[in-house]
Amino acid sequence: MRLATGVKLQNRALAFLTKAGITITPKEHRQIEIADFGLDDIDNVGLEIVVYENNDRYCAKELVMFPRQICPEHRHPPLSKQNIGKQETFRCRWGEVYLYVPGGRTRKPKAQVPEQYKKYLTVWREIVLAPGDQYTLRPNTLHWFQAGDEGAIISEFSSTSVDESDVFTDPRIQRVPEIE
Amino acid sequence: MRLATGVKLQNRALAFLTKAGITITPKEHRQIEIADFGLDDIDNVGLEIVVYENNDRYCAKELVMFPRQICPEHRHPPLSKQNIGKQETFRCRWGEVYLYVPGGRTRKPKAQVPEQYKKYLTVWREIVLAPGDQYTLRPNTLHWFQAGDEGAIISEFSSTSVDESDVFTDPRIQRVPEIE
Repeated sequence: MRLATGVKLQNRALAFLTKAGITITPKEHRQIEIADFGLDDIDNVGLEIVVYENNDRYCAKELVMFPRQICPEHRHPPLSKQNIGKQETFRCRWGEVYLYVPGGRTRKPKAQVPEQYKKYLTVWREIVLAPGDQYTLRPNTLHWFQAGDEGAIISEFSSTSVDESDVFTDPRIQRVPEIE
Repeated sequence: MRLATGVKLQNRALAFLTKAGITITPKEHRQIEIADFGLDDIDNVGLEIVVYENNDRYCAKELVMFPRQICPEHRHPPLSKQNIGKQETFRCRWGEVYLYVPGGRTRKPKAQVPEQYKKYLTVWREIVLAPGDQYTLRPNTLHWFQAGDEGAIISEFSSTSVDESDVFTDPRIQRVPEIE
């Protein structure tokens, strides 16, 4: 991703945070991670991430999602004998989020998925998160999510985050920071 | 604490959250913990706590502080060979917070402490937290904090919370939930 594009996306993410009444520092603004998962299609697939804290015990982030942006299907696998994998709690702060996990397929899901991404989305039990709603995912649980028409902001509380070990269903995906 | 008083304080805490643009569910509203630390002086010493998640790996809470309320001095001691004690990150979301930790005494601290509580406040290095500012406390670090004139809301991200093991400087303090 070109730097100018990255800065524009960081500014757009900041505008969503501001609308939601969430304050970040100028330094956090400059460090917003633009994750396009290597697909170069940020309007459809991506996350804008403010990492508040990530230490060897816990992690806290704000996830900004533009309208209808998708975070692609993945899981957080076991990392060692001591670490059964990342556990995470998603709390919707603003907007609406459609979260999908293993289980009976929801009949009329609210997600709207571009045709080319459908084959890499295999779990379809829908959980709708409005502001104040939250959901905790056990380690190694397949999941993906999409923001509603207005976008969304999600607080993520979790055990330590080790993004590079995430396992994605779409084999093309590389989970690395995209701003150079 | 009498139940009617507790409900009034819960409603007051909700009003602060609403003012700050933070949404909680009706169930979370009914479960707001009113911590008066056994001192029965909630206007001066207390915390109003929304526990979002507290599992065996991480914890996330919203701390509501009424104007000039004090959270008394305490530390989170080691709990076992595997657990060196609770580590926590305070992120100010709204209002202003004056946090005190070990180190050189701040000359003109912003805290305003009623005379009777001064002798149990022994650390005086001041950290001022405005919205977007945060500070991470290593385990077993003495600390106390006070909200500014408008009150404050703090997101606390931490390792697992085990309140009953906290060690307070004031020997009268009992850290137990106060709403029955």
